[in-house]
Amino acid sequence: MTNDNEWNELQNTLHRYVEGSKKETARGRVASYIPELAKAPHDALGISLMNGDGQTLMAGDCELRFTMQSISKVFTFILALMDRGEDAVFAKVGKEPTGDDFNSMLKLELVEPGIPFNPFINAGAIAITSMIAGRDADEKAERILQFLRRVSGNSGLAVKDEVYRSEYETAHRNRSLAYFLKDNGVLEDDVDRILDVYFRHCAVEVTCSDVAKMALVLAYGGVDPISGERLIPRRFVQITKTFMITCGMYNASGAFAIEVGLPAKSGVSGGILTLVPGRYGIGVVGPALNRKGNSVAGVHVLQQLSEHFDWSLF
Amino acid sequence: MTNDNEWNELQNTLHRYVEGSKKETARGRVASYIPELAKAPHDALGISLMNGDGQTLMAGDCELRFTMQSISKVFTFILALMDRGEDAVFAKVGKEPTGDDFNSMLKLELVEPGIPFNPFINAGAIAITSMIAGRDADEKAERILQFLRRVSGNSGLAVKDEVYRSEYETAHRNRSLAYFLKDNGVLEDDVDRILDVYFRHCAVEVTCSDVAKMALVLAYGGVDPISGERLIPRRFVQITKTFMITCGMYNASGAFAIEVGLPAKSGVSGGILTLVPGRYGIGVVGPALNRKGNSVAGVHVLQQLSEHFDWSLF
Amino acid sequence: MTNDNEWNELQNTLHRYVEGSKKETARGRVASYIPELAKAPHDALGISLMNGDGQTLMAGDCELRFTMQSISKVFTFILALMDRGEDAVFAKVGKEPTGDDFNSMLKLELVEPGIPFNPFINAGAIAITSMIAGRDADEKAERILQFLRRVSGNSGLAVKDEVYRSEYETAHRNRSLAYFLKDNGVLEDDVDRILDVYFRHCAVEVTCSDVAKMALVLAYGGVDPISGERLIPRRFVQITKTFMITCGMYNASGAFAIEVGLPAKSGVSGGILTLVPGRYGIGVVGPALNRKGNSVAGVHVLQQLSEHFDWSLF
Amino acid sequence: MTNDNEWNELQNTLHRYVEGSKKETARGRVASYIPELAKAPHDALGISLMNGDGQTLMAGDCELRFTMQSISKVFTFILALMDRGEDAVFAKVGKEPTGDDFNSMLKLELVEPGIPFNPFINAGAIAITSMIAGRDADEKAERILQFLRRVSGNSGLAVKDEVYRSEYETAHRNRSLAYFLKDNGVLEDDVDRILDVYFRHCAVEVTCSDVAKMALVLAYGGVDPISGERLIPRRFVQITKTFMITCGMYNASGAFAIEVGLPAKSGVSGGILTLVPGRYGIGVVGPALNRKGNSVAGVHVLQQLSEHFDWSLF
Repeated sequence: MTNDNEWNELQNTLHRYVEGSKKETARGRVASYIPELAKAPHDALGISLMNGDGQTLMAGDCELRFTMQSISKVFTFILALMDRGEDAVFAKVGKEPTGDDFNSMLKLELVEPGIPFNPFINAGAIAITSMIAGRDADEKAERILQFLRRVSGNSGLAVKDEVYRSEYETAHRNRSLAYFLKDNGVLEDDVDRILDVYFRHCAVEVTCSDVAKMALVLAYGGVDPISGERLIPRRFVQITKTFMITCGMYNASGAFAIEVGLPAKSGVSGGILTLVPGRYGIGVVGPALNRKGNSVAGVHVLQQLSEHFDWSLF
Repeated sequence: MTNDNEWNELQNTLHRYVEGSKKETARGRVASYIPELAKAPHDALGISLMNGDGQTLMAGDCELRFTMQSISKVFTFILALMDRGEDAVFAKVGKEPTGDDFNSMLKLELVEPGIPFNPFINAGAIAITSMIAGRDADEKAERILQFLRRVSGNSGLAVKDEVYRSEYETAHRNRSLAYFLKDNGVLEDDVDRILDVYFRHCAVEVTCSDVAKMALVLAYGGVDPISGERLIPRRFVQITKTFMITCGMYNASGAFAIEVGLPAKSGVSGGILTLVPGRYGIGVVGPALNRKGNSVAGVHVLQQLSEHFDWSLF
Repeated sequence: MTNDNEWNELQNTLHRYVEGSKKETARGRVASYIPELAKAPHDALGISLMNGDGQTLMAGDCELRFTMQSISKVFTFILALMDRGEDAVFAKVGKEPTGDDFNSMLKLELVEPGIPFNPFINAGAIAITSMIAGRDADEKAERILQFLRRVSGNSGLAVKDEVYRSEYETAHRNRSLAYFLKDNGVLEDDVDRILDVYFRHCAVEVTCSDVAKMALVLAYGGVDPISGERLIPRRFVQITKTFMITCGMYNASGAFAIEVGLPAKSGVSGGILTLVPGRYGIGVVGPALNRKGNSVAGVHVLQQLSEHFDWSLF
Repeated sequence: MTNDNEWNELQNTLHRYVEGSKKETARGRVASYIPELAKAPHDALGISLMNGDGQTLMAGDCELRFTMQSISKVFTFILALMDRGEDAVFAKVGKEPTGDDFNSMLKLELVEPGIPFNPFINAGAIAITSMIAGRDADEKAERILQFLRRVSGNSGLAVKDEVYRSEYETAHRNRSLAYFLKDNGVLEDDVDRILDVYFRHCAVEVTCSDVAKMALVLAYGGVDPISGERLIPRRFVQITKTFMITCGMYNASGAFAIEVGLPAKSGVSGGILTLVPGRYGIGVVGPALNRKGNSVAGVHVLQQLSEHFDWSLF
């Protein structure tokens, strides 16, 4: 199928895919550890696809606004690479999936030298946040926000304050992780300052289309295909996409690689950023999560699409 | 670069790549847990590439014969899928990398339901071996051997008896794994019979070119590009290549995916099977291993080639 | 209260204590992993106390015959000390409680040098069995049996064959433990031979009174107070009683030390061997087990008695 | 030997025991994670014994002042029992040794319900500190200090400010533990406030004789034998002494129970509080620690004394 034919078919059928996957939401649960997240509509499912010509397809609850949560880790990781370089970043985080829960501390205690296994588990993402350049928390957070605005092309992106505050105040487990890292010599900055920045970038509010646009830049190797501007060095995109395959969907990443086969990153708000290399950026939202913490209907619709259109990288 | 140009350049430079990586062998150690393995030449490095026209490039110590060891797990996994189907296989092994050592038992004890996380760690490979069809150990082992001969196109492939016997007799840790699996209800057959088959397929002796040919079939989605014959269903190749990315290089798979970006499977004898999808099957041997158990010079030469020829899937 | 008064009070009230604790059996479950154990009466509770004059008090289901199971580990440990000496024994097993399940393998993998933490967890008891002197399994098993007969004063003690065979055949987890130990260099002998001996001593059939008599010898520091004969060196009894406090009741040993405060060893058949130093040997049986694997009513009656008669060592 | 004879012999020989054990200090290392602790004299060893008549024997470096560190956990545990009662305390901490390092977080993550296994590991002691009655950190800390003064009979006991501040500021791992507990619902109060109190009681400065006097009260079941005043309910002393046997010497408690056989609690400053029930309170200091974190010479001298005078409880 040519890409044009595929686009046409997508245009005609995307709504049906979303309809077909929507009932899957019944098998999941909306995250409820903070009130703001618990308010998300349980049965929502939305998807947005953008191609290199800047055309966008949308289906389902695409107007739903949600916070990026762990999806933001993709871009703090890239920004840390751009700020510090590969060597500095990989001195503090590893390159391996863990097989453990995203907030597990087992390997920090059991495996020398006690650095996070990868940048996408919570421990790794906190270490990455600490590496973002900036004089203070405000400047770091602002630089991340500017980067997200630039990649998404949406200068209106902003931190959702209620979510940021609520997470910051209840984040005992992340504080525990951060102090463990501090003790292991992984963090140079003050824990509270790092978590302040961390929860701000997790709380940036987006829609599926914002996510699709961000993904599009990754799908085109770091170049915004619409403006033609290079936003990210190609090698950093390559590294990031690799992590998105091996570690992007928490400890269901292996299954997602087999069943969908696309680089992806999910967040606890039910968002998924994924992409078909050289073709599409994709944003999905479906707040009901499966036991592994991924959007249950979001994974389902991606699996259906990938199988039908033969999108797997493998 | 067209594929033809690439092939020409490979032809002219492959020897230089091997020469350049050979000194890396000094940083590794040959496996010595059985005498047969310890005899392997420490400073050897060989590579064989085969393209879809059946042309072969060789460089370095390509005449070196070695036992497949964990490389055989790729094909027992495929054969189990062909014998039993996806559902039966994934009832007994998971789809996730572990972050633990290849012979670790931690997750079997700690993570419900106590099945191996994936088919390439030892526990998973033993479970897979138990699923191979056959009335008894001899028939199972024979069916595996026939499958390996068919995929490699080498009807002379055979089990190296000294290695098989030696491993079978000293395999306390694998016996421990197998009995744990038996206790968890993962294995239906008798442990000794399963391990008998397991050590026989690990001990099949090959050269780089045999491995390259096997990899070529995977690179062409299960079809032998020379004969045009389909040997493996495409979906099973897709699943297998995905596992080769997420779990193929022990718990250095994540790093290999970032640094090389190709589906691969290594063995303790220093062999690596890898492939460039749609283009080449590749066999590498370099008995000196790094701390993660992969051929130190083999990984190095693949990293150099992948970077220069831009082979990464990502 | 003088010991005489205590004995009189015990004589008058022991039946009432047993009656009072019997209903606790409803909160437990009889072990059912082999058919022979599952046949034990769920609501039974029996206790036998013997004092230094050889007088015995019995109450409840004292006629019930049961296999020693883990209670036998007390005496194989002592026999190994007598056969090999302290240094040899503690080269292969440690002196620490684990906090893990009795059949856990976590610390064997995680904690150098991979020897069992103590002689009463399964891994430790298997290592201990391998140290019993004897040309072959038969002689080792016979020496253990003779030792048990001697300490119990019951020359009729014998292995219950159905239990031994049944355990031997279904012991996948213990085989897994044993092969792990073999791999770690803890076991010198053949795994099957060691487990053969192990399951034989676990299957020695006794009554409460046999256990009370064995305990009495420990209560008197290794001397049979009736014959006056020293059966065990005092130092080995001291070491053993210490382990009975820190590790005797699986990973409920700490709670038992607080609530009862006596050296004790339990078995999966519902037996408990315990003692009041210098005064009584005590045997208890109550097949219904709590979640930690100890006789639920047996622990209850001992707690009541210890509290009333102020028996805690602490 | 009568107690009088023993006292006379102790009087004549205690110096020799200390001299004999002093060279063991060469095998240990002084804790150095904060500068104040690192200043302690490496080769010091002191011991103080007090009997029920208030007589004191001293030998070695008894004038050495040191901070209580983990020894204080004995008395915060008792005070929490007195403030809250057994049920409330054991709702938040368990009764079992862990087999893990004193600051390990493994079992908090792996074992339901995620409460500390016992009150003497760091996690447990932090939970205990949070249960001390008091309107705020100052009042809690003051109540603990008053209790320590009362039990030691030394109204001059005070917090060593440099140690308290230094520990408070560098306590990343303890903060990590505390936030993990907070996340598990074990701590009700604010983490910083709890740690403030925690580090203050750890930093109370004492001598061997202060410790011996505190131990004496435990040796006499909670009654100060000199004044005849009951300071602690007997049951709480019994519970505490049991924990001192099973968990008092970090994860060398099992070995200490076998080799010395007395209830004891050690601290990272090299102090040990121990006791011979009904006879002596004992304070030891020797800043050079073995790998398990206990005073290397302190353990040695206690082992020698216990063996010679047959002090083991077992």
